[in-house]
Amino acid sequence: MPAQQPERGFPQTEYESRTESAQRMMRERQLDAMLLTTEPHVRYFSGFLTQFWQSPTRPWFLLLPATGKPIAVIPTIGVAGMRQTWIEDIRSWASPRPEDDGISLLLSTIRELPARFGRIGLTLGAESYLRMPARDYRRLEDELSTLELIDCAALMLKLCSVKSAAEIEKIRYVCELASDSFNALPGFARRGQSEREIVQALRIDLLQRGADHVPYIVSASGNGGYGDIIMGPGDRKLEDGDVLIIDTGSVYDGYYCDFDRNYAFGHAPDNARRAYETVYRSTDAGLAAARPGATTTDLWQAMWSVLEAGGATSNDVGRMGHGLGAQLTEWPSITASDNNPLEPGMVITLEPGMDCGENKMMVHEENIVITESGAKLLSKRAAAELPIVEPV
Amino acid sequence: MPAQQPERGFPQTEYESRTESAQRMMRERQLDAMLLTTEPHVRYFSGFLTQFWQSPTRPWFLLLPATGKPIAVIPTIGVAGMRQTWIEDIRSWASPRPEDDGISLLLSTIRELPARFGRIGLTLGAESYLRMPARDYRRLEDELSTLELIDCAALMLKLCSVKSAAEIEKIRYVCELASDSFNALPGFARRGQSEREIVQALRIDLLQRGADHVPYIVSASGNGGYGDIIMGPGDRKLEDGDVLIIDTGSVYDGYYCDFDRNYAFGHAPDNARRAYETVYRSTDAGLAAARPGATTTDLWQAMWSVLEAGGATSNDVGRMGHGLGAQLTEWPSITASDNNPLEPGMVITLEPGMDCGENKMMVHEENIVITESGAKLLSKRAAAELPIVEPV
Repeated sequence: MPAQQPERGFPQTEYESRTESAQRMMRERQLDAMLLTTEPHVRYFSGFLTQFWQSPTRPWFLLLPATGKPIAVIPTIGVAGMRQTWIEDIRSWASPRPEDDGISLLLSTIRELPARFGRIGLTLGAESYLRMPARDYRRLEDELSTLELIDCAALMLKLCSVKSAAEIEKIRYVCELASDSFNALPGFARRGQSEREIVQALRIDLLQRGADHVPYIVSASGNGGYGDIIMGPGDRKLEDGDVLIIDTGSVYDGYYCDFDRNYAFGHAPDNARRAYETVYRSTDAGLAAARPGATTTDLWQAMWSVLEAGGATSNDVGRMGHGLGAQLTEWPSITASDNNPLEPGMVITLEPGMDCGENKMMVHEENIVITESGAKLLSKRAAAELPIVEPV
Repeated sequence: MPAQQPERGFPQTEYESRTESAQRMMRERQLDAMLLTTEPHVRYFSGFLTQFWQSPTRPWFLLLPATGKPIAVIPTIGVAGMRQTWIEDIRSWASPRPEDDGISLLLSTIRELPARFGRIGLTLGAESYLRMPARDYRRLEDELSTLELIDCAALMLKLCSVKSAAEIEKIRYVCELASDSFNALPGFARRGQSEREIVQALRIDLLQRGADHVPYIVSASGNGGYGDIIMGPGDRKLEDGDVLIIDTGSVYDGYYCDFDRNYAFGHAPDNARRAYETVYRSTDAGLAAARPGATTTDLWQAMWSVLEAGGATSNDVGRMGHGLGAQLTEWPSITASDNNPLEPGMVITLEPGMDCGENKMMVHEENIVITESGAKLLSKRAAAELPIVEPV
């Protein structure tokens, strides 16, 4: 059954609800406003969805006051687009203007806001950056010397980690498209083709099925396993006994899937078959452990114990899963020490991986949503046995 | 004649030459090292080309000392990939590690470097940002209190603006692919189709011709012109008298084209036809003015005088062209006041735009390289008259 395409955009209530949740958290932290500078954060509160962020030249600002709607402080080129959103207070300057690229306009806008606590939130901490010149961040600090600039990175990570039903439907849809593409791959991939040819065919298949675009699609391959999972596709040709992994972050209406699939070519070498079965069972353990109340560390432990019993000695990826949604990877991380509680509405990947021979590894990934009753798969579960392309 | 596909990657001499040029500029500015944090800058000196930057979770650092090769300070997940480059000194930590995501390793690496001037460059100024938590940038400042952190944003903008012959060949190749796709569009686009359908067909055509990916492809349309050039594609269906613009930043081997094409559907309304002719002649003026010794302001003036004579009263885009290459948009900007001298090897867009009726505009764009003897087109020049899809 083909997946039902969710409507594009969100009703205004979605943005109202995000804004109210943020403002509640801001009151607890005694913030008069938050200043946001990155694409996912500006989009989260405004609905401003454009590919134009690909251009690094101009800074964009969204101010979320303690009450009321967000205020946009943006380059003139974006005003017509921002007017299509629910934002009413839009201030702009003719950017690029290197000597003052919006910073004086931003300062005067901040000064207009009520200063009840004298504290403004900016994303300064882990898993954040400021998409603005550091020099201008300094100028903010200097000129707003009566205000304290407070780290709100963790607040934003946590807020965005719990998805609404409408967000989950978009992620589910793109997960289903990618699942169907991955399942179709053995029908068009052939021995003798290069990773690049196969990946490009899959990319086009994803677009034809309904993905808006495919910002992330990497591959790696080797006899019985691969040594890396972030650099490909390369020009290596697939031969008998090779294992190919393809990992994709495809997008529908601004929301990502992020999972991979493995394929053997010709036949599956024993080490690869055994490692595949182990990461598959590790995922089973993850699925069983992923429920509200459990922590990311519980989840890591559940998956790692299966990998270890299966002979794993190391995992160089740094974690075994993470949040996703408006970005390819989001908070939280699933690590041995992260220890963050899982909540209903969190969308995460389960990504167990293990070594399976000299400089070889096997990595498996599924996307799930946490519900009151446990984990629900968003991706269609991978085959229980390593699929074989053109069996010999 | 189909374009010749340039070889992927660069010979090591390319990176040696980039490194030497940077180190020469660093000596002039008395910098002991530069710390680089963004994808294009890390790639510029190392050749590390991966889609993994789509994941915002982990910071990556490249240190360029005053002499010798760059030093990579990166998450473990990237080590296997970085080993494929010419970089030898690779230091890594198991990221994500929120409590210390590489910053202590980076600090100890910086402390090992000779401190002749006591000055370290970071990109702090216009058209830059630090892709690392602002909190960690603060920690750098605090813990390196004997060193001065100096803005090197302008140095990097200028260095990257002049392209090597090998870089120009990659840009030329993707410009040719995109030109061919744009020229093919009237063969497959139809009245009654939506912007989204047409853009998606063009995206697939670009991939089939040989683009690696299409990170940027936007559209806008309306009767006799459009009101915005960064938000689409939308679901608006093209009808008789509409003008459609599509702008693409497609990529081959890490290098972008960035230009647009306009199409009328059924027939070309008079205002659109006249505006098209004006922006076309404005581009002619830009092509004639774009030579070494002229400045970006000369270029702006040459293009604007034609637009003004043609009835233009405003341009909301903020500039009429810009650099491009490893990014969709790069320094310099072509504005009334920018006044930066053009040099041989600079790859830029000419992007004249004008208003052509109430809230309507017409924008034209070509990609060129500056040579000793003047401008050379990289895109295949647009048709001199507004092309018509399905003429009535």
